[in-house]
Amino acid sequence: MLEFTHSFAHTAKDDTKCLTQIFESITKERANQTSGYYALPFSQKALQDSQQYLKQHKDLITKLKNIVIIGVGGSSLGLKALDTMLSSLPQRNAMKLRFLECTDCIAVETALKKVKVKNTLFIVISKSGSTIETSSLFKYVLETYNLLSKKHTPHIVAITDENSPLQKWCHKHKIASIGIDKNVGGRFSVLSSVGILPLMLLGYDVKKLLQGAKELAMRFFDRKEDHILQKALYLVQNREQYPINVLFSYSSILKEFNAWYVQLWAESLGKLNIHNKAVGLTPVGLVGSIDQHSFLQLIVQGCKDKSVTFISLKPTHYPKPRIPNTTLTFLESTDFANGASFATLLDKQCLATMQTLHAQGIPTDSIVIDKICEYNAGALVMYYELLTSCAGCALEINTYDQPGVEFGKTRLREMF
Amino acid sequence: MLEFTHSFAHTAKDDTKCLTQIFESITKERANQTSGYYALPFSQKALQDSQQYLKQHKDLITKLKNIVIIGVGGSSLGLKALDTMLSSLPQRNAMKLRFLECTDCIAVETALKKVKVKNTLFIVISKSGSTIETSSLFKYVLETYNLLSKKHTPHIVAITDENSPLQKWCHKHKIASIGIDKNVGGRFSVLSSVGILPLMLLGYDVKKLLQGAKELAMRFFDRKEDHILQKALYLVQNREQYPINVLFSYSSILKEFNAWYVQLWAESLGKLNIHNKAVGLTPVGLVGSIDQHSFLQLIVQGCKDKSVTFISLKPTHYPKPRIPNTTLTFLESTDFANGASFATLLDKQCLATMQTLHAQGIPTDSIVIDKICEYNAGALVMYYELLTSCAGCALEINTYDQPGVEFGKTRLREMF
Repeated sequence: MLEFTHSFAHTAKDDTKCLTQIFESITKERANQTSGYYALPFSQKALQDSQQYLKQHKDLITKLKNIVIIGVGGSSLGLKALDTMLSSLPQRNAMKLRFLECTDCIAVETALKKVKVKNTLFIVISKSGSTIETSSLFKYVLETYNLLSKKHTPHIVAITDENSPLQKWCHKHKIASIGIDKNVGGRFSVLSSVGILPLMLLGYDVKKLLQGAKELAMRFFDRKEDHILQKALYLVQNREQYPINVLFSYSSILKEFNAWYVQLWAESLGKLNIHNKAVGLTPVGLVGSIDQHSFLQLIVQGCKDKSVTFISLKPTHYPKPRIPNTTLTFLESTDFANGASFATLLDKQCLATMQTLHAQGIPTDSIVIDKICEYNAGALVMYYELLTSCAGCALEINTYDQPGVEFGKTRLREMF
Repeated sequence: MLEFTHSFAHTAKDDTKCLTQIFESITKERANQTSGYYALPFSQKALQDSQQYLKQHKDLITKLKNIVIIGVGGSSLGLKALDTMLSSLPQRNAMKLRFLECTDCIAVETALKKVKVKNTLFIVISKSGSTIETSSLFKYVLETYNLLSKKHTPHIVAITDENSPLQKWCHKHKIASIGIDKNVGGRFSVLSSVGILPLMLLGYDVKKLLQGAKELAMRFFDRKEDHILQKALYLVQNREQYPINVLFSYSSILKEFNAWYVQLWAESLGKLNIHNKAVGLTPVGLVGSIDQHSFLQLIVQGCKDKSVTFISLKPTHYPKPRIPNTTLTFLESTDFANGASFATLLDKQCLATMQTLHAQGIPTDSIVIDKICEYNAGALVMYYELLTSCAGCALEINTYDQPGVEFGKTRLREMF
């Protein structure tokens, strides 16, 4: 269960019309399959493809100690977000999940330090296969581990667009691959096989993940989650005043979720709109309470150009560990939290910060997660994807492309 | 060696006057000891105090496998930044460095999972000792490991303000402590014992770290690094147009340095100024090339409200690993980087991105580090501290306090 609280209600007649327009655009996007992400939790494809892969490679999978993901951006951020969020669940097995995403010389060697091919599965994830980081790292792994020898090819699987160059390469070398639909963009792909296969390998209940996403989507399309429309419209209408949107997540397990949100928001919403005007909303991810000692001062007393969303966990599910009932002489001023659970302290810190910002007139909203589980994780992912789509509609942009990234790629080729 | 390139030159007569004013203010701050950080690399105190501690606890230190830092914000970010940046150096020993900084229930238990007291040193870092996260976590550790038993007290050391409540508590329990000067604020403290003691324990050459910082400071005060003044003035003068400053670090080893920069910039510069106006500059930290697949689209095609600083490593020192000279059928389009070192690829990606932004009229500057070492790390730290002080002067604020953080603290106490 997620509880949403916000103060972005729109009552003016014009605004109601705007909300309806956004809702209709989103409904059309879904029907036209402008983006394939809407369909993912309703489809059985990722589940079936992943189950089939697991069945066909049973012997290998029982031996696995490492999964190495070769992929960057949308191919790694969603999976990293969900595994970091959920890794304390008892069903998470002991497999190490490693990411090969950075082309810096030190990161490459560190990531592979303890990796031996015999108990490792290399999952290469790329829509086309032609992302320069992914292909270079993949070549490096192929050579380092002699992966194209017959004995080793079962240790590779590719997740890629149907009929992509990478999938053709897999077919040629008799290497396993799972196809994803071309209309599922990288940053919206975590509920496709891109996320589902690795999460299934790690022991998570992916059905519940998909169910959480599906039920939130259904409620949204039944107009039972209109706060999403209202928030999107508010942020877009007030973007001159509040160009920066802070996601303040009160738990370190949400750190990588923040990074996923930053990509989703920045790459989807920073665009030229249909009137050829540069628009955008700038995302910032913070972790509470740590960043109360970093970024908070700027929010409270700096320019009032930020809206802030809080995510927190209900402390009732987390009664332990607790702060001991100890008094340290000279430090008695800290005794007020004695005996409380750490979760209660963190929850109250979140609330205190939220009230402080509210009192300063800073727009805030809050998402409370009752407990960490796959179902809630799926709902949270779908919430942010729908919110992004709604904001994209309100901004009159193409939410699903990223033309600005191509300029640098072209220049890079010219340099070599 | 650090190479600085920028296009923020100021030629107008008024601007030259402004630069001189900032320089004079900084010189005054240093002379008046408004902040103690200016003096740190010129002082032998941290070095001597840390060496003395090591000498007195030789037997314990040879047994250590873990260092657990209990501290938040300025007490942890600088150390984490430097250790992450430098950890591939051969002099770095095998000790695990762990941080207990987050009060969430899951993080607390994870951080201490493999920690046994017999080979662990707990370093509690807090200016006063009364930060609620630090004191609560410290109480938890004291109880969990029965640290106040006579056998265990040598496994604790505190780094704290001279005569702080925490230091008094240490004296009472005959626990080791190292004092720092009261005018050294947390976020400016990494070159005091806060950073120097742990870094020395980890095997780094801290003398070179201090030397790098000292030489940069000397050049600045000799007016040989005026680009710092120019950049600070440019960013402050143009803050309405470019309220967001992105630090795009092209190496994953600089990820935690970004977090240190974000705290330094946000908490120092988000303030009410002497005219009671809310001012500030918003920092964003990115890692290249990864975030080319995330945030870059927003910079290129979103609102033009960002300046971007690039940090990169000269690839000449890093000839390995290399991208294999392999062609993957159907993926020939990625062969252009074949045979290059990963460091060269990353360097050219940085350059390509910089040129792309430059062509879009986005203000950029660049810092090139010739190689990763303590000397350069010290220079980089001092560069950012001086830049922050200069920007603070230009904004007419108190760079060294954080009054906005207190509101939430008061509210928290009321809640309990």
